Amino acid sequence: MINKVPSDIEIAQCAKMKPITEIAEQCGILDDELEMYGKYKAKVSLDIFKRLKDKEDGKLVLVTAISPTPAGEGKSTTTIGLGQALNKIGKKALIALREPSLGPVFGVKGGAAGGGYSQVVPMEDINLHFTGDMHAITAANNLLSAAIDNHINHGNTLRIDSRQIIWKRVLDMNDRALRSVVVGMGGKANGFLREDGFTITVASEVMAILCLSNDLMDLKERLGKILIAYDLDGNPITAKDLKVNGAMAMLLKEAIKPNLVQTLENTPALIHGGPFANIAHGCNSIIATKLALKLGDILVTEAGFGADLGAEKFLDIKCRYGGLKPSAVVIVATIKALKMHGGVKKTELGTENLEALDKGFANLRKQVENMRKFGLPVLVAINRFVNDTEAEIELLTNKCKEEGVEVSLNECWAKGGEGGEEMARKVVAILEKGESNYKPIYEMEDTILNKLNTIVKEIYGGDGVIVEDNAMKQIKKLEELGLDKLPICMAKTQFSFTDDASKMGAPKDFKITIKDVRVSAGAGFIICQTSNIMIMPGLPKVPAAEKMDVDENGVITGLF
Amino acid sequence: MINKVPSDIEIAQCAKMKPITEIAEQCGILDDELEMYGKYKAKVSLDIFKRLKDKEDGKLVLVTAISPTPAGEGKSTTTIGLGQALNKIGKKALIALREPSLGPVFGVKGGAAGGGYSQVVPMEDINLHFTGDMHAITAANNLLSAAIDNHINHGNTLRIDSRQIIWKRVLDMNDRALRSVVVGMGGKANGFLREDGFTITVASEVMAILCLSNDLMDLKERLGKILIAYDLDGNPITAKDLKVNGAMAMLLKEAIKPNLVQTLENTPALIHGGPFANIAHGCNSIIATKLALKLGDILVTEAGFGADLGAEKFLDIKCRYGGLKPSAVVIVATIKALKMHGGVKKTELGTENLEALDKGFANLRKQVENMRKFGLPVLVAINRFVNDTEAEIELLTNKCKEEGVEVSLNECWAKGGEGGEEMARKVVAILEKGESNYKPIYEMEDTILNKLNTIVKEIYGGDGVIVEDNAMKQIKKLEELGLDKLPICMAKTQFSFTDDASKMGAPKDFKITIKDVRVSAGAGFIICQTSNIMIMPGLPKVPAAEKMDVDENGVITGLF
Repeated sequence: MINKVPSDIEIAQCAKMKPITEIAEQCGILDDELEMYGKYKAKVSLDIFKRLKDKEDGKLVLVTAISPTPAGEGKSTTTIGLGQALNKIGKKALIALREPSLGPVFGVKGGAAGGGYSQVVPMEDINLHFTGDMHAITAANNLLSAAIDNHINHGNTLRIDSRQIIWKRVLDMNDRALRSVVVGMGGKANGFLREDGFTITVASEVMAILCLSNDLMDLKERLGKILIAYDLDGNPITAKDLKVNGAMAMLLKEAIKPNLVQTLENTPALIHGGPFANIAHGCNSIIATKLALKLGDILVTEAGFGADLGAEKFLDIKCRYGGLKPSAVVIVATIKALKMHGGVKKTELGTENLEALDKGFANLRKQVENMRKFGLPVLVAINRFVNDTEAEIELLTNKCKEEGVEVSLNECWAKGGEGGEEMARKVVAILEKGESNYKPIYEMEDTILNKLNTIVKEIYGGDGVIVEDNAMKQIKKLEELGLDKLPICMAKTQFSFTDDASKMGAPKDFKITIKDVRVSAGAGFIICQTSNIMIMPGLPKVPAAEKMDVDENGVITGLF
Repeated sequence: MINKVPSDIEIAQCAKMKPITEIAEQCGILDDELEMYGKYKAKVSLDIFKRLKDKEDGKLVLVTAISPTPAGEGKSTTTIGLGQALNKIGKKALIALREPSLGPVFGVKGGAAGGGYSQVVPMEDINLHFTGDMHAITAANNLLSAAIDNHINHGNTLRIDSRQIIWKRVLDMNDRALRSVVVGMGGKANGFLREDGFTITVASEVMAILCLSNDLMDLKERLGKILIAYDLDGNPITAKDLKVNGAMAMLLKEAIKPNLVQTLENTPALIHGGPFANIAHGCNSIIATKLALKLGDILVTEAGFGADLGAEKFLDIKCRYGGLKPSAVVIVATIKALKMHGGVKKTELGTENLEALDKGFANLRKQVENMRKFGLPVLVAINRFVNDTEAEIELLTNKCKEEGVEVSLNECWAKGGEGGEEMARKVVAILEKGESNYKPIYEMEDTILNKLNTIVKEIYGGDGVIVEDNAMKQIKKLEELGLDKLPICMAKTQFSFTDDASKMGAPKDFKITIKDVRVSAGAGFIICQTSNIMIMPGLPKVPAAEKMDVDENGVITGLF
């Protein structure tokens, strides 16, 4: 059967979607709480929280993965498949995912969520404008930018230092020419000249704020705290100083409402918020997560990248701000990817290689250990590929057992929920045992340096951090401003526990070099960068856009 | 009663809206043809045209006005009021309006459509993101920009001359700092340095194209024809050469569907497309207009600015491309505005002044004459204000009678549809006579110069055009390229028949100076500018955004 799975788009276009009103009814959303966007998408009014405030929350299951490799792991597919499987075995489960970004779709082929028989639909809408959340974030971000230049133009009462404006404009488009620009050209009527740049919308702090807010008022307050610039004396200036956080919140009043769609098997899915996984925390909104916990018995959600990066931020940033208590973690691994961690080239992954698998297992072992440090019970989910041999599966299974960690094969890609039933049963067993004892890995009140050292030593398995001079100055500045008692948002390569992408497996005896430290005071975290992070991608020589088309019936081709 | 009308926002917030499904049913839209955006907004699927293709079209009534003055005329209010009034007297009437632009809302207070008891609702949604059309246009426009710089970056096979790139980026925001920018700074990785600029989204040719397309395939073809630049040999380069018109059309496949809302009295209203009225043609989409003609017996729609500018473009550009045949024109005038045309200062408009009214009538007389030149029967609609005296009303009525033109008072602002019943009955009488004999004022195949002279002599009452050297070169270039056989889109001050905003009334013995001639090859018109047109507004010293806010229930304040 595995060989006969049609392409993602073929499967998605044949999906038998239910009207979203039925999906809403299925999870107990009232008619008045639903705002339709066409027949298969809806926003859920935040009023629902009032009605359900006394209802007990469901269990939160986080899906994460080993350090990603070019072989692919299938984390989203597993998340969706697990949600479907839980419903198949009689549980009332929902899933919560990030919204894909529109701009990058034109660079390389589509940003579909999931694959095979574990996808969310309507896939094309989700990947294009969806319900307009990205556009609203773009508008809110750029209103703040316009207000900054306008303030300077009209006398600059706040004495904004135009050399020290941190806030950038955004567009949801891969557009390298906008990375670094000069604005205000053309003389007096066009304001004062200064350097600026555009980032992609998902990298906007507004996106991170939307995802970390507990309600509309929390959102507005966080928007007000955004550090936009320093004045000529070095004092911080915020969005609130420009009095536009109210208007920004107004622009986001619909975007803050979670979006309801469904999977191929009609499992309810909330897709809401999509912050960059490197300079932000990279998981869907707290509001969607909380809503899903109110609506179902089990919520399956995912975090970006591998567990050391994505799950760490999920557990240290998102859970902290949302007051969330995860009950279990599923770590997705593939035999192919583990063999790459064990040193095999991508071209040679088709051949059985027990030695490499044994060696590469170190990455998975460390990720399991890390999740346990957060007090969480773990299930390893092996996303099965057609080339995996019985001997490889047996070895991996045995090695997991040696570590005392539950393990399950899954075939959600090829078989949908049915392919994840064993995994679902094991997750339920873990939840029933109730052994979660979640706690963050560091205290927010600790110093930035201590927090960094904790992450590097406990999670990455290194010996600590080296902080470059410039970064140390930035840390001092944040301490002076009282902005240091915030969670850390690590911006590091996702391919390695170290800051060197080529070091796979589970390296030892290394340090992490911190080159840049910045605060997202509104979102509420400190971004610590180990290298320059690209926050405005470019298009390739032949962009995917060239293949995209729409016919007279509105049917899209070339998107996936 | 007139004195007791509450504010627009107070009236709008008390509106008893019907679910949009009911409005749709009322005008014969099937359930399957409706795509909901919340409870009170919907898009209408273009499939409806297939079903209704044999249904006879309703009558098209254009609402236009005298040359605008700071006193205000109330054209949108009259359009909406007339639609309501027609329904009150038993006709099945719809209205079609332009979509307001989001960005400018943050500069000065809201861009509400209509006023008093003649408004479209939900007003706040319509003025904010509405159904995302503006955002889709922004994305399509900027995809093309990204493709241009990306092409140059990856070898520039088309030999695009970076000094001659016409296509600009857009944002839906008043942001003067973006009028003139340098992009591609920062070295090799960020592409080649060049000058660029942002205009406001409604000024994008993509918006004009959306409004002038007859269907999705027409849209795609027009997008392909957009002239984006010249190559190093001076040959034109189009969007199709970059192969992104398919992707752009894909981005616009929802935006091309008309948006259905309602008036305060539940009259169905299609609000779709909002092109700039100066560098574009300034009226709602052909598709919405055609749909409304299929759905009702009478469609009331409006064109931007005064009749010499807005109605001329409606009749020479939009009707030509849409194959539309208007049946009547309503020219809105106020006694205050006519007195201003007669030389009275704004501060002295409260005093009766028959002499000034008599003198200022010249503007109205010329506008009536012009509409008759297009073969159209005219009704003058006097939008009544509380300070208008009986003597003034009598004088104006008599002067209209002298010209042999029908005239009616209207109080739609204060009384809604009820205040427009007389006007509605007179419109119906005109329609029943069936005396329309619509024809454009010039032939498309004529030369640019002849077309310009025809407009200036026939419509403005001047002696012809003076074409500056540079503009003459541009005309020659368009003739060489075979792009001259297109309608003219005049970009001239709306406050005067001349190119001098201070010359009110109906001046004689003047010429119009053409300073710039450009083609919108996709939209299909030639923009002839008499001066620089501001296509990216700025924010004022205290932007309206500072007063805007949203509370914990999502209720907006300060938007209007």
